[in-house]
Amino acid sequence: MTRRDFINSTSASYASLLAWGMLQPAPATTLNLPANGRREDGKGRKVLVLGAGLAGMATAYELGKLGYDCTVLEARSRSGGRVWTIRGGTKETEIGESNGQTSSFEEGLYFNGGAARIPHHHQLTLHYCRELGVPLQMFNGNNEAGYLYNDGGTGDLANRRLRIKEYHNDMRGYTAELLAKALDQPGLDQQLTKEDIEKLVDFLKNEGDLNTAHLYKGTNRRGYKTKDHPGAGHKPGNMTDPFGLTDLLRSGFMQPVFYNVGDYIYEQQTTLLQPVGGMDAIPKALEKKLTGKIIFNATVSELRKTENGVRVVYQKDGKPVEVTGEFCVCTLPLPMLKNLESDLSGTVKRAADFVPYIKTGKIGLQFKRRFWEEDDWIYGGISRTNMDINQIWYPSYGFQGKKGVLIGYYNFYSRAEAVGAMSIAEREKMALAQGVKIHPQYPTEFENSFSLAWHRVPYSGGGWATYDDATRKKYYPSLIEADGNIYFAGEHTTYLTAWMAGAFTSAHRTVEAIHARVGEYTKK
Amino acid sequence: MTRRDFINSTSASYASLLAWGMLQPAPATTLNLPANGRREDGKGRKVLVLGAGLAGMATAYELGKLGYDCTVLEARSRSGGRVWTIRGGTKETEIGESNGQTSSFEEGLYFNGGAARIPHHHQLTLHYCRELGVPLQMFNGNNEAGYLYNDGGTGDLANRRLRIKEYHNDMRGYTAELLAKALDQPGLDQQLTKEDIEKLVDFLKNEGDLNTAHLYKGTNRRGYKTKDHPGAGHKPGNMTDPFGLTDLLRSGFMQPVFYNVGDYIYEQQTTLLQPVGGMDAIPKALEKKLTGKIIFNATVSELRKTENGVRVVYQKDGKPVEVTGEFCVCTLPLPMLKNLESDLSGTVKRAADFVPYIKTGKIGLQFKRRFWEEDDWIYGGISRTNMDINQIWYPSYGFQGKKGVLIGYYNFYSRAEAVGAMSIAEREKMALAQGVKIHPQYPTEFENSFSLAWHRVPYSGGGWATYDDATRKKYYPSLIEADGNIYFAGEHTTYLTAWMAGAFTSAHRTVEAIHARVGEYTKK
Repeated sequence: MTRRDFINSTSASYASLLAWGMLQPAPATTLNLPANGRREDGKGRKVLVLGAGLAGMATAYELGKLGYDCTVLEARSRSGGRVWTIRGGTKETEIGESNGQTSSFEEGLYFNGGAARIPHHHQLTLHYCRELGVPLQMFNGNNEAGYLYNDGGTGDLANRRLRIKEYHNDMRGYTAELLAKALDQPGLDQQLTKEDIEKLVDFLKNEGDLNTAHLYKGTNRRGYKTKDHPGAGHKPGNMTDPFGLTDLLRSGFMQPVFYNVGDYIYEQQTTLLQPVGGMDAIPKALEKKLTGKIIFNATVSELRKTENGVRVVYQKDGKPVEVTGEFCVCTLPLPMLKNLESDLSGTVKRAADFVPYIKTGKIGLQFKRRFWEEDDWIYGGISRTNMDINQIWYPSYGFQGKKGVLIGYYNFYSRAEAVGAMSIAEREKMALAQGVKIHPQYPTEFENSFSLAWHRVPYSGGGWATYDDATRKKYYPSLIEADGNIYFAGEHTTYLTAWMAGAFTSAHRTVEAIHARVGEYTKK
Repeated sequence: MTRRDFINSTSASYASLLAWGMLQPAPATTLNLPANGRREDGKGRKVLVLGAGLAGMATAYELGKLGYDCTVLEARSRSGGRVWTIRGGTKETEIGESNGQTSSFEEGLYFNGGAARIPHHHQLTLHYCRELGVPLQMFNGNNEAGYLYNDGGTGDLANRRLRIKEYHNDMRGYTAELLAKALDQPGLDQQLTKEDIEKLVDFLKNEGDLNTAHLYKGTNRRGYKTKDHPGAGHKPGNMTDPFGLTDLLRSGFMQPVFYNVGDYIYEQQTTLLQPVGGMDAIPKALEKKLTGKIIFNATVSELRKTENGVRVVYQKDGKPVEVTGEFCVCTLPLPMLKNLESDLSGTVKRAADFVPYIKTGKIGLQFKRRFWEEDDWIYGGISRTNMDINQIWYPSYGFQGKKGVLIGYYNFYSRAEAVGAMSIAEREKMALAQGVKIHPQYPTEFENSFSLAWHRVPYSGGGWATYDDATRKKYYPSLIEADGNIYFAGEHTTYLTAWMAGAFTSAHRTVEAIHARVGEYTKK
């Protein structure tokens, strides 16, 4: 029976479809509990969860389903950790800052200060959105109408904005032309038959929009002249002229800041999603499932191993409070572990000291008019520049509304460090001064801002864990094993660092590990 | 003063920004009324508008603002023409069909039977959405997670589904490798310097995800193995293996049905938008502005030129009714003009006879589970195949809901003709039998369907006008001039055929032409 025959017989059973790879095996969203374990093994066992971010709350939520008695200690007055939506009234005082900020965003306007997108293949995040009833909408990650702006470069394409689609289609056109030309010559050492080459050239012709002579002479894919779009009557439209290949190559657009991440990064390919109304819909929905289980404004100050489990001290209303449990699940970001008095093993302490966390910052800018939509035809997506602002994000919600909040910078590493070191007022000034080069409407339309530097945000201390091969080898193993009765969870205990899916998958792994261990006890 | 200095001085005036090309001149959305005309010139003048599609309603709406007295005659009991959303309760009886269909879609589920997407650069369509308060959301046109399925082909990649991202990233990788190799050789006749070539190879390395030897050996961009995605603990993930280049070339994926239209077609580039709740939100909002002006169930049967204007006969409740006006704006699709008794000029009649309209059809399939999201991680977007179903569209709304309606086929020309000639039941059977090859879940999850063949839909008679150079030259000119006091509007009178923006821009052009002419009268 050929595969085709098989598929044609629509009586295919689930098992046979599985065998042919046409269906997922078990949903990756199901907890992998030991076959010999019993659900009731967890009943009444006390677990202290440190941190009411996604990892901590999902752990408590799933352990709760298995009967465990969880208490979640959260230093902040809110849940969600680095999943945080900034709206009117949001307050924050960063480390080293005196006055603090309160957002003046208008009702209905917001930006996601931390996690901001859900890849379509992050099934566990999507599973929780489904289970918790969090409605989703698309996040526009890869908008060809966004701009590139190479500041301070030389040549015709520097110090001006150009559309991503102009750059992409020109590069695609020229490279297709060059390869078509090369394939025409015997020089290319290749295994391709004449027919294969013909097919490849056909592909290139379409890919690059080459003319009949296989030359790239521009394409309407890059757009039409402003006053000469196709229309009614005698208006066929007049396409824009391509840039020159050498101009493009010398433009500086090969720098990583300009990368086409939608093609280059698996996690950023279309489709990306976001909760309607802000990313904090996810932690808020989880929080609801944990009513009475989370103690807010509870800063953990001590984490001890005891004979039968763990002992934790937290500060509440200026006074220390002590709690004990059989297990502890510690989801604190590693920078927060550094200051904790603890019995943690030396390898864990060294991981906390040496696994780097990214410095990163964002600013939300409220404008009284959505000029990027009205004037620039940009509905969501990202503009990229080598200036300190690095990226401008246009909101993927509230299209065609009156006002809007865009993200005026999203930067990383040394750029984020420098900008984060500025005063709140200086950050705003910088975002406006650089942004105006791309959007001249900034000065007349700007209203107010709210900025954050994650490495200065209390209880976070950084954006996310950034492993390289060496730190992954040296420090990671200690974080994915239990240290006595203490387990670690959070994006830093996964290969999905920076992603909410990392937090969720670490929660599952931890729940599975604890429940398997408890199952071993009860067997004895 | 350099451009850079200029931009750096943020005091740039509107006029100077215009001059530097940083701002749009006048919004393309403003009516271009004659400078010497007066708004009141139109007051009380009677205009008969034939058809309450977007072109007709926008014409009546704009003429109404200028004081004209418009009456819109609509053959159907609804407005919108080819802008039509199919929901539970929607009824239609196609030409040559006996029983008719009534949709059984569940509350909240729908598909757009005709116009289904708004390109971000269709400013006039977006302008009307803004002016009429129609909220928009993203339409996912280019989902890399969608499938390609080459049916009946030979080779390893035929008769199986593969992800668009697998095909794209492999082709990108191999072509980048081939060009990098060619650039390494002196054979390629080129104007590039050594430095330029280095930059180009650098670009290719990123574009194709080549290894350090500039070879394409696969990439995680195409995805991970099903059971081996990155996760918590010891799960770095294991990427899938690339297909072979010759397999890809011999796969048949160079056929136009598989084209990457998001890159190839300006109108289908990201970002695409759609009204929340269905495309008919646009005609419904226009209809509201024309309360009392539209006569429904009024089939125009005669269109005559008179000494002072026009005379129109329409059939209402089985009886002919005669109306007269100073002008007529005829927005009927050309296939509808053929059967009209009229004084239209010979050239217009010949245009109606010989401008081809595309045959095209869609079917909406309701499933009791959104398996494409749950099992396949597809949130909106399109799968493509060379089977008669041609395209499967996944809904870009209601993500993660319980049930869903996807578009089970969207086909054109001879395929649409063949499918349209089937009975309603046969169409459904065909859609399911072919669709199951891509989605094995079809048989267990299917609930009901609604199909349409636009060339058989009364009062439309086709999808949209399809000009080639010859028909554009021969017939188009007669449609964009007034025939006496009769003007023509609709997508067929533009270079934006098939698009709602065509209807709108033709309405603007017609209003401008009538108002200019009236201005000339009043000057005399």
